[in-house]
Amino acid sequence: MSGNTIGKIFCVTTCGESHGKSLMGIIDGVPPGFPLSEKDLQIDLNRRKPGFSKYTTKRRENDHVQILSGIFQGKTTGTSIGIVIKNNDVRSQDYENIKHIFRPNHADFTYQKKYGIRDYRGGGRASARETAIRVAAGALAKKYLFLNYGILIRGYLSQIGPIKCPFISWNHVQKNPFFCSDITKISQICSLLDNLKKEGDSIGAKITIICENIPVGLGEPIFDRLDADISHAIMSINATKSVEIGDGILVASQKGSEHRDEINKQGFLTNHSGGILGGISNGNSIIIHTALKPTSSISIPGNTINDIGEETTIITKGRHDPCVGIRAIPIAESMIAIVLMDHLLRDRAQCNTSFKNR
Amino acid sequence: MSGNTIGKIFCVTTCGESHGKSLMGIIDGVPPGFPLSEKDLQIDLNRRKPGFSKYTTKRRENDHVQILSGIFQGKTTGTSIGIVIKNNDVRSQDYENIKHIFRPNHADFTYQKKYGIRDYRGGGRASARETAIRVAAGALAKKYLFLNYGILIRGYLSQIGPIKCPFISWNHVQKNPFFCSDITKISQICSLLDNLKKEGDSIGAKITIICENIPVGLGEPIFDRLDADISHAIMSINATKSVEIGDGILVASQKGSEHRDEINKQGFLTNHSGGILGGISNGNSIIIHTALKPTSSISIPGNTINDIGEETTIITKGRHDPCVGIRAIPIAESMIAIVLMDHLLRDRAQCNTSFKNR
Amino acid sequence: MSGNTIGKIFCVTTCGESHGKSLMGIIDGVPPGFPLSEKDLQIDLNRRKPGFSKYTTKRRENDHVQILSGIFQGKTTGTSIGIVIKNNDVRSQDYENIKHIFRPNHADFTYQKKYGIRDYRGGGRASARETAIRVAAGALAKKYLFLNYGILIRGYLSQIGPIKCPFISWNHVQKNPFFCSDITKISQICSLLDNLKKEGDSIGAKITIICENIPVGLGEPIFDRLDADISHAIMSINATKSVEIGDGILVASQKGSEHRDEINKQGFLTNHSGGILGGISNGNSIIIHTALKPTSSISIPGNTINDIGEETTIITKGRHDPCVGIRAIPIAESMIAIVLMDHLLRDRAQCNTSFKNR
Amino acid sequence: MSGNTIGKIFCVTTCGESHGKSLMGIIDGVPPGFPLSEKDLQIDLNRRKPGFSKYTTKRRENDHVQILSGIFQGKTTGTSIGIVIKNNDVRSQDYENIKHIFRPNHADFTYQKKYGIRDYRGGGRASARETAIRVAAGALAKKYLFLNYGILIRGYLSQIGPIKCPFISWNHVQKNPFFCSDITKISQICSLLDNLKKEGDSIGAKITIICENIPVGLGEPIFDRLDADISHAIMSINATKSVEIGDGILVASQKGSEHRDEINKQGFLTNHSGGILGGISNGNSIIIHTALKPTSSISIPGNTINDIGEETTIITKGRHDPCVGIRAIPIAESMIAIVLMDHLLRDRAQCNTSFKNR
Repeated sequence: MSGNTIGKIFCVTTCGESHGKSLMGIIDGVPPGFPLSEKDLQIDLNRRKPGFSKYTTKRRENDHVQILSGIFQGKTTGTSIGIVIKNNDVRSQDYENIKHIFRPNHADFTYQKKYGIRDYRGGGRASARETAIRVAAGALAKKYLFLNYGILIRGYLSQIGPIKCPFISWNHVQKNPFFCSDITKISQICSLLDNLKKEGDSIGAKITIICENIPVGLGEPIFDRLDADISHAIMSINATKSVEIGDGILVASQKGSEHRDEINKQGFLTNHSGGILGGISNGNSIIIHTALKPTSSISIPGNTINDIGEETTIITKGRHDPCVGIRAIPIAESMIAIVLMDHLLRDRAQCNTSFKNR
Repeated sequence: MSGNTIGKIFCVTTCGESHGKSLMGIIDGVPPGFPLSEKDLQIDLNRRKPGFSKYTTKRRENDHVQILSGIFQGKTTGTSIGIVIKNNDVRSQDYENIKHIFRPNHADFTYQKKYGIRDYRGGGRASARETAIRVAAGALAKKYLFLNYGILIRGYLSQIGPIKCPFISWNHVQKNPFFCSDITKISQICSLLDNLKKEGDSIGAKITIICENIPVGLGEPIFDRLDADISHAIMSINATKSVEIGDGILVASQKGSEHRDEINKQGFLTNHSGGILGGISNGNSIIIHTALKPTSSISIPGNTINDIGEETTIITKGRHDPCVGIRAIPIAESMIAIVLMDHLLRDRAQCNTSFKNR
Repeated sequence: MSGNTIGKIFCVTTCGESHGKSLMGIIDGVPPGFPLSEKDLQIDLNRRKPGFSKYTTKRRENDHVQILSGIFQGKTTGTSIGIVIKNNDVRSQDYENIKHIFRPNHADFTYQKKYGIRDYRGGGRASARETAIRVAAGALAKKYLFLNYGILIRGYLSQIGPIKCPFISWNHVQKNPFFCSDITKISQICSLLDNLKKEGDSIGAKITIICENIPVGLGEPIFDRLDADISHAIMSINATKSVEIGDGILVASQKGSEHRDEINKQGFLTNHSGGILGGISNGNSIIIHTALKPTSSISIPGNTINDIGEETTIITKGRHDPCVGIRAIPIAESMIAIVLMDHLLRDRAQCNTSFKNR
Repeated sequence: MSGNTIGKIFCVTTCGESHGKSLMGIIDGVPPGFPLSEKDLQIDLNRRKPGFSKYTTKRRENDHVQILSGIFQGKTTGTSIGIVIKNNDVRSQDYENIKHIFRPNHADFTYQKKYGIRDYRGGGRASARETAIRVAAGALAKKYLFLNYGILIRGYLSQIGPIKCPFISWNHVQKNPFFCSDITKISQICSLLDNLKKEGDSIGAKITIICENIPVGLGEPIFDRLDADISHAIMSINATKSVEIGDGILVASQKGSEHRDEINKQGFLTNHSGGILGGISNGNSIIIHTALKPTSSISIPGNTINDIGEETTIITKGRHDPCVGIRAIPIAESMIAIVLMDHLLRDRAQCNTSFKNR
């Protein structure tokens, strides 16, 4: 298969551009008899949705998802599920000026060179707008994983620019526009973003996703290790530049005696490994961190070239988030849900074991 | 396909355990008419080979690779290529004592729980020994990429425990057992490893891979972005806990105006993005960092349980590297070569363009 | 991937039921810069469309296809192409009576048993209605193959019930509702169908597809041989019960000296092999025959059981073609086009040769 | 993946040529804890083995299979299983004369044109010798399917040239070199083959495979229908030119009222459909027929060209079966076993149902 499908048994295939008619997705391999409605998918779409606060893009999309197939009388039938999200608030005229210019840090240059043609309106397929479909598909997976296995997949903002936001509790995460668990940091974040706005600049971020109640045994060594497939999924999100599992880059300076998670009757005493050993889940929480680069569209002039190679400078107009990392949280949760769902079904195929007996 | 195949067009499928009869691989999708001999594959196998210095495992494998099919009169025929590496220096008796015990930080626990059975000898399939086949397959890809496109894929040790080893030049990398580019650090590394040996402990590391002369246009958005597939491949290597592309985790604290790579007639002025934009190579060097956890097998006693859940402690005997990160360099190079080869062929399929015209 | 995707490089993924809101498809891997409009897809949809003559179902669907993504300024962009066809003329009440009854020869029984739930309206996903999307995707492939390689894929009715319709010429095939090349048979076919209608019965058929101007070299031995992939694609069409390549079942009674296609400077002297040798196209026309079972929905009462195992009889109402074989011709052409397109791209990937030089 | 892998969850990847060092295979996705030894695989290899009677090739291969990985203490571990079969009785000098000549009806022409190079010795990869690995992999699947589900997959010769051999019983099938169920036909077959031998000619055949005790519910519509995947697998066998399921081509002349399998409390009253409805097994026996073309290597001179396009004639020496159809029976059984195994595991993944409850 080509590049717009993810998963082997639970497969999500998507299409759609930022300023096209609609975004679409086909979700295949969903177990039959599972209750599913558009509302289930809407919850996470609303969390990802632009216009959530004054710190996100002013583009106003209701991101209303429609299910076109695969559901009968409120339940999945085992056939492929088609979903559509229309694009409404499209202002393509904002992009006329970049028709022939490659915006630095954007995919304009690489899409043009690879394909010899590009839909320049709003970044076309390279826009983060396509992630709406991922979030809808991920919402399905999240519901399935939670209802059947109690699996919880939740993320929070762990760093934005210079501000580190260590985890306090889940209590406040959904109650502020930054998915920040430490509310004492909110005002700092607001000033940071307000200043950036004035400067016409943007900022990077780091987010953390925690998956709880994971059964032991998910992952298919050696190439489809769970950590490998999660890294693939995370790195397929726009703007991500790193993936860390458990202690991540800290392991470079750890000793074996420090890093290893010892075991007693109750289970693992620590979780340096982030819940994965040998590419297989060990039953501990899976912990993933990813750093996202600052929004590429900024209003500080930058040097670039046009599509016939002439030098020029550009200011990127349009309506953009100053920090794409914030809205990436529901997206990252969704991608991990898709991977876990796929591996859960794959484990059933080969091992066919009730997880409780492991 | 199940978990032991990587790639979509250029596919590598492997099997084999640490103490089994042989490791085997089948490499499929290789373009026909390409000159290939066992010697070509042996070069990198020798770089990965155990017993390279006193700081690596004392297991002595000559890692002699045999090509059993797919080559005729010194050239690839376009059919699948079978390779075999025999296991010779197997001392399975070393592992009798861990038959029923889960070594902390090893995959013993997860393999046993997932499959209900495990080949405990030397870690079985979870041992890094299987990477020999990856290195052989990667050597084929490296040769193809270099001869046809001038692509060079090279790695070095960038950190070991507390010692950071910034890049100086490629001159010395192949001339010391640590793939360290900065020879002024060699003696520090030796003392570090000597001390660890005395303590019976091990250490983590960070390695960096640089890919030069990359054509513009490799990568298949949105899920098979080049960075996503590289992350998958890197994270499928034993002991890896992070992947970073370009500036990696540093982007979390960068501003948009700092991070973006501006462009002029000569090309990109900087390379913060690490050679990939929108999931597609931009023609700059691709830069990847990965952190590897410390070797799991250490002789400091650790708490654990056995396979019937009783608590016990363990000292891991056997012959082990104090730092698995070092030998991971040729493995990481190979995995990236496999990904680049696959994407190069995939790009041919869809875009069918001479890279020079981009 | 799960069962609703076909192809490895050129991938078609579909969803949608007979009486659902819409049929949808995502076509991935299409080369960029190729001119494509909804009109291009509509041509074949109109050929497949119900209501083509009084001998097909009275369901009136305009089968208007919409392209939602992947096209910019009239050309493909290399990104995934989304297509939608709405269901309009849905009379689900016709199916209330079969809610709990398994219609013999239909997929009701097997879908119910496999999934434990089924969309009984019009056969749900098992209805041939889903093939509309295949035809749209196939139309894209046909256009690409024709414009770039001159490949022509055309089918005709070769048998309907007892009436054999040998090939005369392409002149009349598109001019009668039966895709029959021999117009002297039309009146016989009409009487046959008229009688069947009176009896409330249906009839089987055999169709033949000829692919001309095929380049030498398509097919990927050993499992993805061109004949194997064509057989897969043909047998995935509803109601097909056989596939033959070239002389097909006649080879069982042929001698080697009879069957073999001898060669001289001009090429092959005969085409018993149907254009494929060793799983690879030999440059001759590819010839495929397939037999389709009679329409399952007939009004002659049949014995069956309901979903709690009680015996009953059924008369299948609804609006049905007396011979599904007729409308299968554009579907079969499309499926073969999809396979050829995929193999053409795959051949580019591995062999990267201009076909003219072969 | 490229063309040398079959299956999605249960995957078989192969390599090896007729006169290469070895044939190899990697079998992936095998459930863990399943007892398996080389003996299990050898049974079917012996049935396929050349030199079984005076009517098969005189090449003497013991086809001794070695398992190199994936088994521990007599059981599968869930990791990939490597198998090797050495080529011993290689007489490559027999093929020196065809180095530059394309044997009619062989794959010489197409391999040379596609790849620009070919291993001409014994047909290289295009030789039926590669099927030894398929048979070994199929033997594993057959054992699994039989021990766990009672599934029996057996084939017989149903036609050889003009001699039709209708099914009598399984009693004699394994006791004659032709897998013929009707022993009254044996002497006719012997004379036919003796005469062909004198003439230096060969003959086609038709074989039938019956799969019993099939659970309801195998198959993944719409593209991975069970009949579609079986057709793919059968048509991937050298020399096959047709596939029929159930009544096969006879359906072209059947009426709906004749063809449909009515149902009562005991199940289906007939089995015209050959055990598959809507692409899903219905619990009846699966019935598959395939016709195989006559052996291509015959000693009657044939017209052909050489690799620089000059006309010539050829007599194919070497050691060949007069009827490849005979030895195809264990191969076809194996391919079907591989498909059923894959679908069984896939059904577990999505539907996760005990088959008994269906």
